[in-house]
Amino acid sequence: MSILFRQLTICGVGLIGGSLALTARKHRLVERIVGLGRTQSNLDIAMARGLIDFATRDAEEAAQGADLLMLATPVMTFPATLSAMVPYLSPNAVVTDVGSVKSWVVQQLEPLLKPAMSFVGVHPVAGKEVTGAAAAEEGLFVNRRVIVTPSALSSAEALEKIETLWRATGAQVEQMPPASHDAILARASHLPQIVSSALACALADEMVEGRWAAGFGAGGLRDTTRIAASSPEMWRDICLSNSEALTSALRLYREWFARFEDAVAASDERALNELFARGRRMRERTE
Amino acid sequence: MSILFRQLTICGVGLIGGSLALTARKHRLVERIVGLGRTQSNLDIAMARGLIDFATRDAEEAAQGADLLMLATPVMTFPATLSAMVPYLSPNAVVTDVGSVKSWVVQQLEPLLKPAMSFVGVHPVAGKEVTGAAAAEEGLFVNRRVIVTPSALSSAEALEKIETLWRATGAQVEQMPPASHDAILARASHLPQIVSSALACALADEMVEGRWAAGFGAGGLRDTTRIAASSPEMWRDICLSNSEALTSALRLYREWFARFEDAVAASDERALNELFARGRRMRERTE
Repeated sequence: MSILFRQLTICGVGLIGGSLALTARKHRLVERIVGLGRTQSNLDIAMARGLIDFATRDAEEAAQGADLLMLATPVMTFPATLSAMVPYLSPNAVVTDVGSVKSWVVQQLEPLLKPAMSFVGVHPVAGKEVTGAAAAEEGLFVNRRVIVTPSALSSAEALEKIETLWRATGAQVEQMPPASHDAILARASHLPQIVSSALACALADEMVEGRWAAGFGAGGLRDTTRIAASSPEMWRDICLSNSEALTSALRLYREWFARFEDAVAASDERALNELFARGRRMRERTE
Repeated sequence: MSILFRQLTICGVGLIGGSLALTARKHRLVERIVGLGRTQSNLDIAMARGLIDFATRDAEEAAQGADLLMLATPVMTFPATLSAMVPYLSPNAVVTDVGSVKSWVVQQLEPLLKPAMSFVGVHPVAGKEVTGAAAAEEGLFVNRRVIVTPSALSSAEALEKIETLWRATGAQVEQMPPASHDAILARASHLPQIVSSALACALADEMVEGRWAAGFGAGGLRDTTRIAASSPEMWRDICLSNSEALTSALRLYREWFARFEDAVAASDERALNELFARGRRMRERTE
């Protein structure tokens, strides 16, 4: 593979941005990588691990000369970050992101670009509950889905380069419209997060005769609440920026949960059998 | 340790019953172990692995001479099984169980005992999604909670012997009333199961523009639905036999889920922050 970009600037050198940097460097797909961050300690780790060539906490300095800008911070920060950086980017820069919602991002960011710039929205479906440059690893995206969501300002050339970059990670790259992405991920990712966080909330302070009920949970409770440990800020932003699709997904869940409630209240043996069996079939299909 | 019982008869030589048998044998706490089962193939595995000395599918034959009867099948089968066996047990036999609900079991089983017999309800909190004699392992209960629920027909001697047996597995043995057990486990175990199964049900057939949404899930969806693969029959029985406590637990969850729904619908940044942060705190407390 040949060089795709002269300078990649990553805003937020964390798990996703840092892991992508490792691949870009290994395959020499970019000449130089600049990291923009809020905290010096994370940037120091990124430098020490060789994820980036240059670290700065100054948006203007980070933007200088970049022909690829990758936004990898919580999505609600994207508009302000891009506004601050766009005057200093290379005139025909490609702007991309790795956010978990896409329609909102496209709507917010495309109006900020200069005429010769392109935008390509990307969502690598490879979250973990760990964060930061220390967690970055080269194999993170192998066989994972990376969804590219072409929009009005996605030039054919920019799309091609961004897909080449992501394919180099070993991911399965596929395209779909931003709205389809958001409807799918509301169900497959954002809904499970709220289901898990709501369970953790319900049990957080729940005492039964002086005993903390959650202390009696075994593997089932542990697995079901594992992702409740994820970053509140990240999930707040996803909820705010994908509220419409997420509202439908929450309604869908509430309806199924209500069927369980009704079956338990009525001691409906047949309905309980069917519900638990349906749940098991879904699991068998994912394995 | 010395011998506690001459003959332990286990109804259902699966993960729990089989694992307990391994400990009882290792420490020579019982002289002889008889396994009663529905399927010959599982009994063959139990014999081949040395979990039991004698296997039968006949309740009368299994009951003959037993001074300890352990019920380790789905809880709704307990009354019929015990009725069939009680005439053939040793006159002062101890009957125990390993069911996940306790009040219902005590109410159903104690009236079936003969005058000199004792009952001691036990719940080893050590479930797994694997089942059968093949899954039994000696270390299964190490550092796990084993809850003993003394009831009217729990003689002091029977309680002492049953607790000695379970302490030998390396478990933390503790006592509480049957109703307290059921309220706690409704929250810590039965609720997470329904939360998980309802999510799996909601996504089982959910398509977005020709794509199966759940196919785009990552680790979060996988963890959150893992226990949805559990036995429908077992969970149906738990719901039927603990419906009152479970109904309260489901209501508690529905209220917290509704707060997330309201916060998403209203794009309430502050409420979302607080909810996700509360969920994270619960996780930190369990680790």
